Amino acid sequence: MKIEMLSTGDEVLQGDIADTNAAWCGQELNDIGLSFSRRQTVADKLEDIVDALHQAALRSDWVLVNGGLGPTSDDLSAEAAAQLIGKPLQLNQHWLSQLQAWYQLQNIAMPESNVKQAMLPEGAELVDNPIGTASGFIVQHAGAQLLFTPGVPSEFKKMVKQQWFPRLQAAVPESNGEVKRFYTFGLSESSLSDRFDPLELPPEARLGYRSSRPSIEVKLFYPRQDAEFERLSQLLRAQLAAHIFTEDQGNWALHLQQLMVAAGKKLVLAESCTGGMLAAELVAVAGSSAYLDRGFVTYSNLAKQQSIGVPEALLEQYGAVSMETSQAMAFGALANSAANIALSITGIAGPDGGSEQKPVGTVCFSLAEGDRCISQQLLLSNRSRSVVRVMATAVAMDMLRRYLTDLPVFGEYQHIKRIASKN
Amino acid sequence: MKIEMLSTGDEVLQGDIADTNAAWCGQELNDIGLSFSRRQTVADKLEDIVDALHQAALRSDWVLVNGGLGPTSDDLSAEAAAQLIGKPLQLNQHWLSQLQAWYQLQNIAMPESNVKQAMLPEGAELVDNPIGTASGFIVQHAGAQLLFTPGVPSEFKKMVKQQWFPRLQAAVPESNGEVKRFYTFGLSESSLSDRFDPLELPPEARLGYRSSRPSIEVKLFYPRQDAEFERLSQLLRAQLAAHIFTEDQGNWALHLQQLMVAAGKKLVLAESCTGGMLAAELVAVAGSSAYLDRGFVTYSNLAKQQSIGVPEALLEQYGAVSMETSQAMAFGALANSAANIALSITGIAGPDGGSEQKPVGTVCFSLAEGDRCISQQLLLSNRSRSVVRVMATAVAMDMLRRYLTDLPVFGEYQHIKRIASKN
Repeated sequence: MKIEMLSTGDEVLQGDIADTNAAWCGQELNDIGLSFSRRQTVADKLEDIVDALHQAALRSDWVLVNGGLGPTSDDLSAEAAAQLIGKPLQLNQHWLSQLQAWYQLQNIAMPESNVKQAMLPEGAELVDNPIGTASGFIVQHAGAQLLFTPGVPSEFKKMVKQQWFPRLQAAVPESNGEVKRFYTFGLSESSLSDRFDPLELPPEARLGYRSSRPSIEVKLFYPRQDAEFERLSQLLRAQLAAHIFTEDQGNWALHLQQLMVAAGKKLVLAESCTGGMLAAELVAVAGSSAYLDRGFVTYSNLAKQQSIGVPEALLEQYGAVSMETSQAMAFGALANSAANIALSITGIAGPDGGSEQKPVGTVCFSLAEGDRCISQQLLLSNRSRSVVRVMATAVAMDMLRRYLTDLPVFGEYQHIKRIASKN
Repeated sequence: MKIEMLSTGDEVLQGDIADTNAAWCGQELNDIGLSFSRRQTVADKLEDIVDALHQAALRSDWVLVNGGLGPTSDDLSAEAAAQLIGKPLQLNQHWLSQLQAWYQLQNIAMPESNVKQAMLPEGAELVDNPIGTASGFIVQHAGAQLLFTPGVPSEFKKMVKQQWFPRLQAAVPESNGEVKRFYTFGLSESSLSDRFDPLELPPEARLGYRSSRPSIEVKLFYPRQDAEFERLSQLLRAQLAAHIFTEDQGNWALHLQQLMVAAGKKLVLAESCTGGMLAAELVAVAGSSAYLDRGFVTYSNLAKQQSIGVPEALLEQYGAVSMETSQAMAFGALANSAANIALSITGIAGPDGGSEQKPVGTVCFSLAEGDRCISQQLLLSNRSRSVVRVMATAVAMDMLRRYLTDLPVFGEYQHIKRIASKN
């Protein structure tokens, strides 16, 4: 089945807004075993839109049209659809009532301009939009079906998933099926395919990878939820083993929150080079107060001494970026909080501050509970200050995850060199 | 002049990588007064690429082609170009020598597969790539010029800016010119255009807006750097006034660092709902240790009491989200640090925890120096936990910027309601 996507809008063309709808939809299609053969964005000019619709309809079975359904004069998609199929626009009474009810519910008078959103090409099939004022619709042209969808991402996504995918899946039975997702850390994409390509998978099964730093998502596609699907999932699980951060959901902070709450423990953070990034990541999940006691952003040496009691002599002897200092930070954070577990990070994020012994990318981590402390010194990629900080945050999260699930706290990370460790 | 862009690559179509080259180039074109009339992405299939090139050449004066110039078998752009113009591929000796020299410089033997990157369509004009192995080239077809560029963003950007834009600007003299940029906070895009549309600008001048939360960038385009350009810049500056966070560069944290260093003062942060986001934002700029003394992430009430001495009675009387608490946090942060200025944030980021008196989005801020404290309670948009935290971080940065530049610390923010304030 040939599917293409056509977006309208000067904002996308001018790069003022990224075309996230297209990227999202490409991924979702891929998850059901389908893909776009082409994707384009056309400026808000009626004749260009009609021409692009016509060409796309000639080439493809389905054309997904996105945007241009708003109430303003530069929203041209319904008019373009009407011109394409040679029919007039016509007031859709059902959608007009929906619109009026929608506004009434909010005690707002419906602006006159919104009537435009109930004008659909004659003969078009209405596609419901339960969360917005722009209805979708389908028209036929040159043997293709064209689905018109609103540009607002939440409305677009709902419509695509709830109303379009079932139609695709009815037409292409093999697009139904199960997906198992593993969110991994510490493996490279190429090593993952090296590792899995020799696997003798049944022809119905398919693997996919998606990299979104710091995680790589490994996906298993399979037509049915059956024993074979379970067996294959288990096979991947065994191969990926301790590299799996989460399954089926990719929110690491949420997973850590669940593990910490289940353990009934409280966490304290002492961050130097990450400067609050780890704390902010954990607080992004609602309910983090259930386990996150507090965080110290001790970027200066003085702060390390005063707020979490790192001895000045120790800083002088070993330097701020050392396993000794990270250990003192972790124990100091425990002593200055009501937490059970402390995580500390101190490193050289660059671009300056590196030396031959400790180049940019050198980061020390400690995890302490009671009088036990586990520390490591890693050399992260020095690609940029931001990459060092993002990777350092991820490593600290991985240490905590491993600690809470009784795995070895030191992971085998590809592309990251372990300089030293202390258990 | 009609310009369109054609990208190749299954990864972009499947949404595995975002089409950032296209978005970037759309913005840059816009800055010189030009724009894409269409943009498309085609799968790695030879006949589809040739067809798309042909159609694009018929419609446009310039076609910018991106990607598909690598050494592997799914890199098809040069072959597609050759087919399009009906000429064979031919070894370009000059580029082959460049490639060999490039590898020699790194003491690496050139892989045989890279010879492919020196095979260009007969008659094509070579376009130099000083930082990569894929050369660009230009061919003519159907009255259009087609520029083929590498997909690697750094190589693409250099080639476009250094080699393509001068050609466009030679053809379209009005595309040369000056740009003045203002990065504003607290105004909405629609109010900006309401404010500026009535301005009687000379016909050569043009305004542009770009929204990237929390900032809106206002751009003035003008053909020359002259007294009139200065006058218009000054006109905009006077209109935008205290809403201007920075001019010409959009990094707020860098600006605050420069202001703090110039003032010779040190900063301490006490964050509750933002949970370290403000600290992380400031530390993202290298050199932040010059003024950032430390940060306290006091998400729990206990942490507020123990780490920065907020009295338990005060928390009980006024609640954790109150101007009284934010004030106590700011003074407590000063008392527990070596800083001169303290910024504190405490609020309800949601989705739960709101009440009728203090709905989700209620955030209190204090800025303290010596025994002076300036506090405000705002109601931010409750669209999501993330939006509340990002906006709260921005407001705190804006308070500090205003304080350090002797502006009223309470800004006039559209779409944000001020519930209370205390000076």
